[in-house]
Amino acid sequence: MSKYDIIVLGSGPGGYVTAIRASQLGFKTAIVEKENLGGVCLNWGCIPTKALLKSAQVFEYLKHAGDYGLSVNSYDKDFDAVVKRSRGVADGMSKGVQFLMKKNKIDVIEGFGKLKPGKKIDVNGTEYSADHIIVATGARSRELPSLPQDGKKVIGYREAMTLPTQPKKMIVVGSGAIGVEFAYFYNSMGTEVTIVEFLPNVVPVEDEDVSKQLERSFKKSGIHIMTSAEVTKVDTSGKGVKATVKTSKGEEVLEADIILSAVGIKTNIENIGLEDVGIAVDRDKILVNSFYQTNIPGYYAIGDVTPGQALAHVASAEGILCVEKIAGQHVEALDYGNIPGCTYCSPEIASVGLTEKQAREKGIEIKVGKFPFSASGKASAGGNKDGFVKVIFDAKYGEWLGCHMIGAGVTDMIAEAVLGRKLETTGHEVLKTVHPHPTMSEAVMEAVADAYGEVIHL
Amino acid sequence: MSKYDIIVLGSGPGGYVTAIRASQLGFKTAIVEKENLGGVCLNWGCIPTKALLKSAQVFEYLKHAGDYGLSVNSYDKDFDAVVKRSRGVADGMSKGVQFLMKKNKIDVIEGFGKLKPGKKIDVNGTEYSADHIIVATGARSRELPSLPQDGKKVIGYREAMTLPTQPKKMIVVGSGAIGVEFAYFYNSMGTEVTIVEFLPNVVPVEDEDVSKQLERSFKKSGIHIMTSAEVTKVDTSGKGVKATVKTSKGEEVLEADIILSAVGIKTNIENIGLEDVGIAVDRDKILVNSFYQTNIPGYYAIGDVTPGQALAHVASAEGILCVEKIAGQHVEALDYGNIPGCTYCSPEIASVGLTEKQAREKGIEIKVGKFPFSASGKASAGGNKDGFVKVIFDAKYGEWLGCHMIGAGVTDMIAEAVLGRKLETTGHEVLKTVHPHPTMSEAVMEAVADAYGEVIHL
Repeated sequence: MSKYDIIVLGSGPGGYVTAIRASQLGFKTAIVEKENLGGVCLNWGCIPTKALLKSAQVFEYLKHAGDYGLSVNSYDKDFDAVVKRSRGVADGMSKGVQFLMKKNKIDVIEGFGKLKPGKKIDVNGTEYSADHIIVATGARSRELPSLPQDGKKVIGYREAMTLPTQPKKMIVVGSGAIGVEFAYFYNSMGTEVTIVEFLPNVVPVEDEDVSKQLERSFKKSGIHIMTSAEVTKVDTSGKGVKATVKTSKGEEVLEADIILSAVGIKTNIENIGLEDVGIAVDRDKILVNSFYQTNIPGYYAIGDVTPGQALAHVASAEGILCVEKIAGQHVEALDYGNIPGCTYCSPEIASVGLTEKQAREKGIEIKVGKFPFSASGKASAGGNKDGFVKVIFDAKYGEWLGCHMIGAGVTDMIAEAVLGRKLETTGHEVLKTVHPHPTMSEAVMEAVADAYGEVIHL
Repeated sequence: MSKYDIIVLGSGPGGYVTAIRASQLGFKTAIVEKENLGGVCLNWGCIPTKALLKSAQVFEYLKHAGDYGLSVNSYDKDFDAVVKRSRGVADGMSKGVQFLMKKNKIDVIEGFGKLKPGKKIDVNGTEYSADHIIVATGARSRELPSLPQDGKKVIGYREAMTLPTQPKKMIVVGSGAIGVEFAYFYNSMGTEVTIVEFLPNVVPVEDEDVSKQLERSFKKSGIHIMTSAEVTKVDTSGKGVKATVKTSKGEEVLEADIILSAVGIKTNIENIGLEDVGIAVDRDKILVNSFYQTNIPGYYAIGDVTPGQALAHVASAEGILCVEKIAGQHVEALDYGNIPGCTYCSPEIASVGLTEKQAREKGIEIKVGKFPFSASGKASAGGNKDGFVKVIFDAKYGEWLGCHMIGAGVTDMIAEAVLGRKLETTGHEVLKTVHPHPTMSEAVMEAVADAYGEVIHL
């Protein structure tokens, strides 16, 4: 029986990063994967969707070339080629992980892994043992009872990435990051898209101002939006699909070729032996302490299967911390209040910390500042005037409670706020940090200035 | 005679920002401008060039649409329309400054201002007085004796922005930010461009690795580059222009329609009354203390006319500090070692702090980390694999000495490094700041990890 220091179950952005860090720290490491190295993120999530969205972005430029002094007489998209490019990017990244496993001398064990008592793991009939076993099996698309997925007419994100033909009409149920990214992509490609959101606002986890701005931008681009709306019934018997949608105004029936269900995720904790080992689970999540130990010594869990935000970068950070702690390093627990979230439709959304509503509900006295990109020189020059940066500070202590951005390129701008918050910056220090001109990032400085009554360009 | 608390001479990004901050602080403020509000930056610099570069970027997408699964059968650029868009953006911004002056109750005095003793200023024959006079007259294109500008065949940045027809062949002398931005723009539009740089590397103020990457990228895009090369003679007598270029290999004569001279700037300090008042000047710069006071009480100078970096954001920051100090606020002097610089060609360049060479020359023991975008998932998805992030840390104390980026969108990513350095972050803190996945900004975290032997994706 092969014996390792560490075996990681699952090779998504949680698992493979954990394995690499473990190997760096001198552990003899193996990783178990039932499908493709890189997991959902690389193969069916973060990466291939960004490739699709890039094609959409370029397609928008073709449509609006005249705005930039250019002319295009005849242009088109090749839906198959767009999907093929996306698959190519995903495959390249998965091969990259393969290379990293080899380079870091990590054994890749192919197959479905099942935990066994005594710090063992069974992979398709072969047993492996380790001093430490880390579960990183991730999650998949959640199915609503009222919206069962058949993979053809009612699909999840995975099928949405590789549809054989482009639908003419699509209903997207749920307007979190996955829902709005696909809504934007398909609308841009020419599909008629309707978003159905159960809550009163699209991207409901974001600050309300961000939700409203996205709704405005999406409506301008032709996406239909129904909020406080629920799909109560689906009829797939005909040629397409009919969805009964209930709103405060009553019920209506929408017809489409495809319904994309994007109503959250379900963790992959079935049949992996949690019960055999006695690992405690609560409502779909494996219970862990601050350093990802489960209730059973020698077994750990990180990523989507644990209670933290189900995001790739959280999984990676958790995995790194988990093995650094195992290695005896002095590590600080992850601050789940300082995790950025990004959505890559256009305009992009990026945020970290409390929304204005959350801060007020906590009874904190706050200072709020906002700077619209319509007042930014760089945004004007780039034709990116939609959106804003909004910042929230504790009025008494100056703590940077939250930062909310919507606009072009903001997913690459939020790191400043995350680092600033980690370093416990005050608003004054951000204000006195010279931001280069002309950039979109000046909007962060100006939003902070606005919070303190010192904004220049408003 | 009208009397003000503060009069600002010049309405560029130094002057108009100074005036707004002065007004916010309760000062009765006037601003003197001989031409357009917003100065060179808004009208002939930062902003209109970014508009031109955006057209170039979109044009590149048209050329390479096939890379994204799209097809374009027939496309073209309308050079006049590209220039017209750029002028429209500049005009819009200048009107924006007009609005800000009105909103902040700042008197705009049109005309050429000349300082007088006794804290007075003469504008076209009318005298105004103030308790504090702030000189912010900026700079213009520097002329080399061997390369006199005639505004037709040998031009500066100003003419390069509004050429009546697109040149077929262009020589760009000097490869600082202005030179390489125009080289990129004209090459993208279809002009045959040759860069002649006196020093051994293009963008010579940048880290050598950045210079080399830009040279590779530019050569790939068809730009000719001659380094360690000097234009010794120019002959404009024929139809076009002939430039004699001296290199280590000897002399050769290049022919072109236009030569763009981009060899730096010359401050606007002539005829503004510095001598009458007795204000001390050293080699083209007005001498000031840490809060921008000249040697004569009541007279201040900020922006390009002073010794700090000749950058718009430096001018703005200096002006704000200058009036906050006048207002009696407790202010800290600007840290000129933490000023970011940005270049907006493609790939973009952004940097702050010491280059590797500078750090080594200072005898500092350093840790260097580098992460190429070729290993970034977001870069792959976006088709932006050129470039890297490079970081330099003090090996002993962990101080973040420098950060150098080249790649897509890096001008909006450098703020993180500037803020981190201001807050005296350590590498470890950057490493433990959760950067969102998938973003280009992860490359900062990974470059830091590389410096400390903990990089994941290499």
